[in-house]
Amino acid sequence: MSQKKKVDLREKVLTANDEIARKNREKFADAGTLVLNLVSSPGSGKTALIEETVKALKDEYRIFVVTGDLMTENDAKRIARHGVEAVQISTGDACHLDARMVDARLSDKGAPFDLVIVENVGNLVCPASYDLGEDFKVLLVAVGEGDDKPVKYPPMVRASEVLVITKTDLVPYTDSDPARIKENALKIRPDLETFQVSVKTPEGLDEWTSWLVSRLKAKKKTAQSR
Amino acid sequence: MSQKKKVDLREKVLTANDEIARKNREKFADAGTLVLNLVSSPGSGKTALIEETVKALKDEYRIFVVTGDLMTENDAKRIARHGVEAVQISTGDACHLDARMVDARLSDKGAPFDLVIVENVGNLVCPASYDLGEDFKVLLVAVGEGDDKPVKYPPMVRASEVLVITKTDLVPYTDSDPARIKENALKIRPDLETFQVSVKTPEGLDEWTSWLVSRLKAKKKTAQSR
Repeated sequence: MSQKKKVDLREKVLTANDEIARKNREKFADAGTLVLNLVSSPGSGKTALIEETVKALKDEYRIFVVTGDLMTENDAKRIARHGVEAVQISTGDACHLDARMVDARLSDKGAPFDLVIVENVGNLVCPASYDLGEDFKVLLVAVGEGDDKPVKYPPMVRASEVLVITKTDLVPYTDSDPARIKENALKIRPDLETFQVSVKTPEGLDEWTSWLVSRLKAKKKTAQSR
Repeated sequence: MSQKKKVDLREKVLTANDEIARKNREKFADAGTLVLNLVSSPGSGKTALIEETVKALKDEYRIFVVTGDLMTENDAKRIARHGVEAVQISTGDACHLDARMVDARLSDKGAPFDLVIVENVGNLVCPASYDLGEDFKVLLVAVGEGDDKPVKYPPMVRASEVLVITKTDLVPYTDSDPARIKENALKIRPDLETFQVSVKTPEGLDEWTSWLVSRLKAKKKTAQSR
């Protein structure tokens, strides 16, 4: 197998995905649905952030959550407890979700949603290459995970519009400094929107949900003017 | 691109890798070199565990460390400070090391080493499929990372012989329970060798290095009788 053949194959797979992602994005634009694609290392707190987001917004907005993992339905179950619709995609041995998977889970739903949150497979590499049709890739980096993670995984930072630094309650017990995580991320992508949150204290959650509400309103407005 | 073609291609790549891994394993067996392949999520503390291992064993054993990341030489630099040879492999956009990369970094070294520690790219998916010729895949799961990680990523647990639960000093500040991590891992692979360590307190490090020394001696003995 030549290196060129491998690269060609990868290109083909990515082009096919991009085409489906483009269609997803078009549908979401028509419906005024805001779509987030949450990406991070395994264990950075994606599910916990989604739970808090759902609790804060579910009375005002129709929310649908898609969670990806190699195995188990643990995350979808955790989220569904809060009274929103959540489905799990088990990827088997794939290290990312793709645009087709997201489309398949949404296409049989009748009423449109205001907010779709996709929790990608915990992985700082693979999901960077797969557009799902989202408005924002939201990268989570947890306190204690290594403040140099953004510079070690630059493609993921480059692909993301938003950085959420999580688990800030752990700052006193680690050598980690959220300011340093942020600085490292901004070196790679200076226009990142950044947040610092703890689901425990609950520092920064209001700021995060306020921003999300502003984005939800903007998306709806744009859809109405189409 | 059909699903079948994609699967065939993956098989070819993996078969080629396995062949190089087999040759690596043969060389290591001749030299009596013990090889560890450390795998985990980004930020589970692989580099920190290697630093402590190197400090404990470098006076008695010749150690070589290979670290993998998409970008930066941060980890190799951290380890080289302790006076052992360490090289960094920058994988660009690849989510794992492969057998050829490890062979290339070792083949120009004159004297054989007693212990080679490979720090794989932080990723709970891709490195599971790539044999490097190691004696043991050592899976790290950190306290606070989510106690259900082993059941969410079963191929990595199945591929590993050893589980090291790290950052046990964080137990009081999280909802995490090392016993639950261990239990979840043993469900997937009941014969895992397990350790619990903190590089801060430093709980469990003696047990880990003692086990490693017993493995180093066994490997040397087997080489002498070949």
